[in-house]
Parts: sequence; structure tokens; C-alpha cells
Amino acid sequence: MTLLQSNSATVTRQDCLALDANDPLAAARSLFELPSGVIYLDGNSLGALPKAVAAAVQKTVTQEWGQDLITSWNKAGWMNLPQEIGGLIAPLIGAAQDEVVVADSTSVNVFKALADALQRQSKTSPKRSKIISERGNFPTDLYMAQGLSSLLNQGHELVLIDSLDAYGTELNAVLGTDSAVVMLTQVDYRSGRKLDMKSVTQKVQAAGALMLWDLAHSAGAFSVDLNGANADYAVGCGYKYLNGGPGAPSFIFVAKRHQEHFTQPLMGWLGHAAPFAFEPDYRPAPGMIRAICGSPTVLSLIALRAAIQTFHTAIAKGGLPALADKSTALTQLFIDLAAPLAQQHGLTLAAPAQSAIRGSQVSFSLANGQQAYAVVQALIAQGVIGDFRAPNILRFGFAPLYVRYVDVFDAVALIAKTLNTGYWREPQFQTRNAVT
Amino acid sequence: MTLLQSNSATVTRQDCLALDANDPLAAARSLFELPSGVIYLDGNSLGALPKAVAAAVQKTVTQEWGQDLITSWNKAGWMNLPQEIGGLIAPLIGAAQDEVVVADSTSVNVFKALADALQRQSKTSPKRSKIISERGNFPTDLYMAQGLSSLLNQGHELVLIDSLDAYGTELNAVLGTDSAVVMLTQVDYRSGRKLDMKSVTQKVQAAGALMLWDLAHSAGAFSVDLNGANADYAVGCGYKYLNGGPGAPSFIFVAKRHQEHFTQPLMGWLGHAAPFAFEPDYRPAPGMIRAICGSPTVLSLIALRAAIQTFHTAIAKGGLPALADKSTALTQLFIDLAAPLAQQHGLTLAAPAQSAIRGSQVSFSLANGQQAYAVVQALIAQGVIGDFRAPNILRFGFAPLYVRYVDVFDAVALIAKTLNTGYWREPQFQTRNAVT
Repeated sequence: MTLLQSNSATVTRQDCLALDANDPLAAARSLFELPSGVIYLDGNSLGALPKAVAAAVQKTVTQEWGQDLITSWNKAGWMNLPQEIGGLIAPLIGAAQDEVVVADSTSVNVFKALADALQRQSKTSPKRSKIISERGNFPTDLYMAQGLSSLLNQGHELVLIDSLDAYGTELNAVLGTDSAVVMLTQVDYRSGRKLDMKSVTQKVQAAGALMLWDLAHSAGAFSVDLNGANADYAVGCGYKYLNGGPGAPSFIFVAKRHQEHFTQPLMGWLGHAAPFAFEPDYRPAPGMIRAICGSPTVLSLIALRAAIQTFHTAIAKGGLPALADKSTALTQLFIDLAAPLAQQHGLTLAAPAQSAIRGSQVSFSLANGQQAYAVVQALIAQGVIGDFRAPNILRFGFAPLYVRYVDVFDAVALIAKTLNTGYWREPQFQTRNAVT
Repeated sequence: MTLLQSNSATVTRQDCLALDANDPLAAARSLFELPSGVIYLDGNSLGALPKAVAAAVQKTVTQEWGQDLITSWNKAGWMNLPQEIGGLIAPLIGAAQDEVVVADSTSVNVFKALADALQRQSKTSPKRSKIISERGNFPTDLYMAQGLSSLLNQGHELVLIDSLDAYGTELNAVLGTDSAVVMLTQVDYRSGRKLDMKSVTQKVQAAGALMLWDLAHSAGAFSVDLNGANADYAVGCGYKYLNGGPGAPSFIFVAKRHQEHFTQPLMGWLGHAAPFAFEPDYRPAPGMIRAICGSPTVLSLIALRAAIQTFHTAIAKGGLPALADKSTALTQLFIDLAAPLAQQHGLTLAAPAQSAIRGSQVSFSLANGQQAYAVVQALIAQGVIGDFRAPNILRFGFAPLYVRYVDVFDAVALIAKTLNTGYWREPQFQTRNAVT
């Protein structure tokens, strides 16, 4: 990595091509469909399409559904998809195979985990009424906590810390005997700040609270070690770095030690110990199965399974360490190459400068939010896809499986050109869409 | 329909072919993929594959996801799928377009509706603490009520009535000033008994309780009129008579008059009034959008949309009345033709004899549950697909869009042969699978 630590002015496009040639993950890109003429730096919002998905979904539609119909619940293993895919995700997040299932959305899984945490605390420590999170956490996590607290109507409170450093130092002032659970997204969706999972979990548990991690921007971006950090709960997203497709179902992790008493309120029939006995009373299935609620959304799950199988194929050479190394190298290269734009155009790094505490994304801010929005639109129109996050953030994600070093070089060149020429001032880039 | 009211002994296979030739819905069958050599009487569990689905899903995977990537949330209308598909379902269930959205599973939607009902009652009538249902209701509805009550820990109680007649007469003994909400599945999944929606709703509301209908076996099987019955809430299934594919997302209806104060605890970001403002506090969107929680499972929704578009095409000639007529005619023919098997083999009708109070399915019981299981397995092995429901029910669903009169004739002939020859005694039909 010596090249990347040198002055960015000395890094040429030729150098980037050489880095690609030596990349242990270089072959992974060929496992994905990527539109020509596009540099896709938005895999942290919607991962690219793994080539294996189309055929897998088509087979499920035409053969398993169309021809084999109801028998496919057994014959094609549909019924087991939540556990099977959970088992495939487990090694990517430092969990045991029987600690993860896939079901529902991330939001719904946050609700399940928080509800268990609050009920667990209420049994032994009824004064532990505070759910602690970060003001800048992805809003759905906060909303779910508000929805749960409001439903319970038992005096629970969501306490928001303005902003955490990578070691969660600001938690010290808040953690106490009234803390029930701390819910944090490891990688901040705006800034890309990555929390040190082990030290934060330790701090939270030392105060007697439970720790829920949202791995939305972690799983599949670098190596995560939930059990190494002794995490209590985790949830995460199937459609970002895991490339499971738009709105892919989410995963939920509950540490083995908590599973026996894990009680989540969405007690659907597929979490029952004997769903086909059709008993009138709920009896939870052993282990993580009780985290499943209704019937699995098979088509979406089949896409996710094919995507995660692709993921394992892609990292066969180099493994998760190679993934993490490339994530670091790509983001650092982007930061270094873009550095000159700070002085010229006020493009300010909004991501951590130190790679150890940075996710697989780089964000910049511009003083003017409307300009930030328009620059992102102008880049998209020219084939560099990143995204805008209110109020003034330009966000670029670097999915290590299919983003190349040369893409980073070309993207920065286009950003420079767009700012230098003022192309972003064109009227078509000024009107905000509903979804940005 | 005079033919069907005559003695079944006089109905020949030729008569059935003639009925098919005159069926106003006959052309609908060509819109579905159906395996050859199979009579599919399980569309009430998993609807058959509409031919339009494969291409629709493939386009979404390869073009919208693969090529257009993140831009498809706007460009391809992914973000609007919950409302769009809700609007397509609305006319099938007697709802206005802005009273229905599609999101999550039926189980999760039951939770949303019950939570709102209990919170609504607690504001004005805190003594209304009872959730009333039927012991034989599909278990997931009962489990969700138990999960919610247990989470709330405020003395709510699930009261189960043993069994209701079609007009809910047995509710009289239970309804009172402590009744909060009545939750019933209109068509009993075992017996096919169909409740009179209007008179039951009236009875429930007269007692000051709210009415939640589960339309799992109603939507797409016959005409439903939620607003005609003044229903408060309804949920339903996308993968039975609506043919949306395995585990298709579910729909939820909230009557317009309740929407302004509708408060459901799964407050995900896509139910927020301004999801892309990323505000830390939840503000519900107007109308049914607040019933949406996390990101929509696009692939599953695309299949469901194509299926419901197919549905509308299929009933273009004849409309919902033709659908209801055919449902009645098919089930009555099946009952009439199977009648001789009662005396010979103890195959007892477990469905209502009167068509007005019968869903689009017919169930029989056998004294011996193991025999009932084995007979269903033997029929499946010979190409007539129905299903077994514990403890001793043989269940046959008649999806009016693709089941023919001649299928009914041939199915009964095979049931008769299987019982007459004792073929069901073969050892391969005796071992129960996990999913039956």
C-alpha cells in the first residue's frame, strides 16, 4: 500500500490500473452485472446485481412456483430459507450459524430486538428505562424505538447523544443505572464514521445495559466480529453490501446466551415450535426460529441467497481480510485524490481521515446544501453515481467487490471537472426529487 | 346452474366440459402456467403462477436493478409500489384506493391493526381490554394478539369463542362493555365457513368494539365489500387467490374515518411524512402511507403487481359477480359429486352445505386423521393437489380463475378410486412431512 500513502499528486491513472491488476479481489467484479459507462459508488444504498441472481429467481418462478407449486415449500427448501440464509451471513459478521436468521425488514427486526431487551431488563432491573442512541443514527432505528416506547406507555425514553467518536466516549456521560439498551449503527450513514464495536460494547455492558448493533453499512463491507465483541443483538440490511436486491429482507442476530429467553412480540406462526400443529396458543420455537414471524417472502429471499453465495465465491481468494484491505485502500485513494478540491472548491472531508475508524464510504460536505445536491445530480448525469444526504452531504460508497482503483481515479477526475467547469449549475440539476 | 342442482348421479364428464365451454371466465385459465397432468386444488394455499409474472420479475432484475440501479426507486416507481398495489387490490375488497397499502406479512399487519384498535379504545374506554376471536382462527392471528397483549402487559386478554355460525351468533354471549376489538377470518381455513361480513360487523360495532377482518381466504375468491359492511380494519394475503407468489407481501385496510388518528407502533422510515428529510422524530405520513414500515421488498412486490394486473384482465368479462358464481358452482359440484363417498367411506362434509355461507373451498373429514393425511398424499402423488389440515381435514380449494368444471369431475373420480382401491394405504403415503 506504499503507493497510496504517497502524495496523491503522484498517483496516475496508470498506477490505478496497476493496482487493479494486482488486486486479489479483481476477479470478483466479473460476478456482477454493471451498466457500461457507469462508475457505481452507491453500493452502500443498493448493491449491484450479482449475475447469478436472474437465473436463480427465474428458476424459482418458473419451475418451483410454476410447476412444483405448493410442494416447493418442502422440496425446494423455501421453508428453510430464513435459517439457511442466516447461516450464510453468519461468518461475515462473526456469528455462529445458529445465531442469525433472515426475516422482515431491518426496521421490524430493530423492533424485535428492542422489545426483547426492554422486557429482559424489566424483569430484573425495572428502573432501566432508557434506550440510548445517536441523534444521527439512521432515522428508522430511532422511529422504531419511539413506536415501541409509545406503545408500551411505561415511561421508556429514547435518549439521543449528539454525536459519538469512534470509541463512544460520549456514552460515558449518559450510561447509568437507568440505561436499558444502547442501539447504534456501527457506520454512520452520513459520515462513514465506524465505531469500535468491541470497546463500545464493553462500555455499554459494564454499565449493565444491553447492546444492539445495526450493521446496515458494515455487513459485507469489511469483517465484523459480533461474538468477538460479545454483542447482545444485531440487525442488518440485505440490499447494501450484501447485494440482495431492492428491499431485500433483513437479518437479525441474537447472541446464543440470550436465545433461550428471547421473547419478541411479533409472534407469527413460523416462529412457533410446531407451526403445522395449528395450536391456538403460541409456543416459541427453540433458537432463532422464534425471530421469524410470517411466511417468508420467497422471491426476495432467493435473490438474497444467490447474492450471498456470490459473495462467498467472490472472497474465496483473500477472504474478509482482503475485503477490508481493499475497502481501506479505495477510500483512502479517493480522499487523497480529492484533497486538492478542498482548497479550490470548499469540498470538505466529512468522513474520518483515519482509515481504522472509517466505513467503506467517503462523504464530503459543501457549505451550500443546494450545491451539494446539484453536484451529485450532475455527477449522476455523467455516469458517476453517488448520493446526496441532507443537509449538505455528498456520499460515495466503495463496494470492494466491484469498484476498481481506476474507478476511483476517474470519479475524482469527474468531480474536479464538474466543480471546475461549474457544470452543476445547469438548471436540470437544481430540482430535488422525492428520493435522493 | 340448474344442472348443478340436479342429482349428482346425472352429471357426466361431458356435462362438465359443456359447463367449461359456457364459462364466462374460461379464457382466464390461459393467463396462468399450470403443470400438465395436475389438477391444482390448492390455490387457497399458494395461487398458481400468472404467465405475466416471469417477464415482469426478469425485467425488474435485469433492467431496473441491473442497469438502472438506485435510480429505479424513482424511475421505475419502486417507492410507490405499496400504494400502487394497494390501489389495485382495493376494488376487489370493496375499499377505496386510498384505504389499502401492501407491506410486510399478514401477521405483521394484524399487529398494526390490533395495536391501533387497543390504543384507540384505551383513550376513551380503558375498560375495553378484550380481544375477541375464534379458537379455530388461523393461529398466526391469535399468536400476534398474544404477542401484543403480552408486550403491553396492561391486562389485555384474548377471548376465544369455540366456533361461530355464519352470522356470529355466538358473539352475543361474549360481546360487552369490556370488548375492545373482534378479529375474525371471514372464511375458516379448515371448514371454509364464510361469515356474513355485514351482520357480524354490525353486531360488533353495536357493542362498541372495533372490527378487524382477515381476508386471507376471501380476497380474490369472491366479491368482498368492506365499506358496505362498515369494517374498521382488514388484512389479507397476497399469495392465495391473488396469486402473488410464495410469501407475497400482505395488504392492510384502514377505514378512511380512522386514518387520521391511525397509530401503529412499527413506525418505520417509509411511514414518515418526509422520509428523506431524515428527521430524528417520527411524524406519520398522511393516510395509509403510515402503515408502511421499512423498505418495500421490491422483487416480491413486482410479482404481486403482475399477478393482480392479471387478475383484473381475467375478470374483465363478468367481473367479480362471475367469479363468485363460479366459485359457488365449482364447490357445489364437488360436494354433489362426492356425496356418495360419505356412506361408502365415511368422507364427511366439513364445509357448509349452503353455498351462501361457504368460501371457495370444500373440506371433508375422515374419522381417522392418519387416513386423512395419507389420502391427501396419495392424491398428490396422482396429480390432484389438495392439502391436509390437522387433525383430520382434507381441504380442496377452487380458484375460479383456473379451475375447470372438468377438473372437479376428474378430482372426485380420483378420490373415489383412491378410497375404493385402498391405494392410500401404500407405505409412502403414511409418513408425515414437516409441511403439509
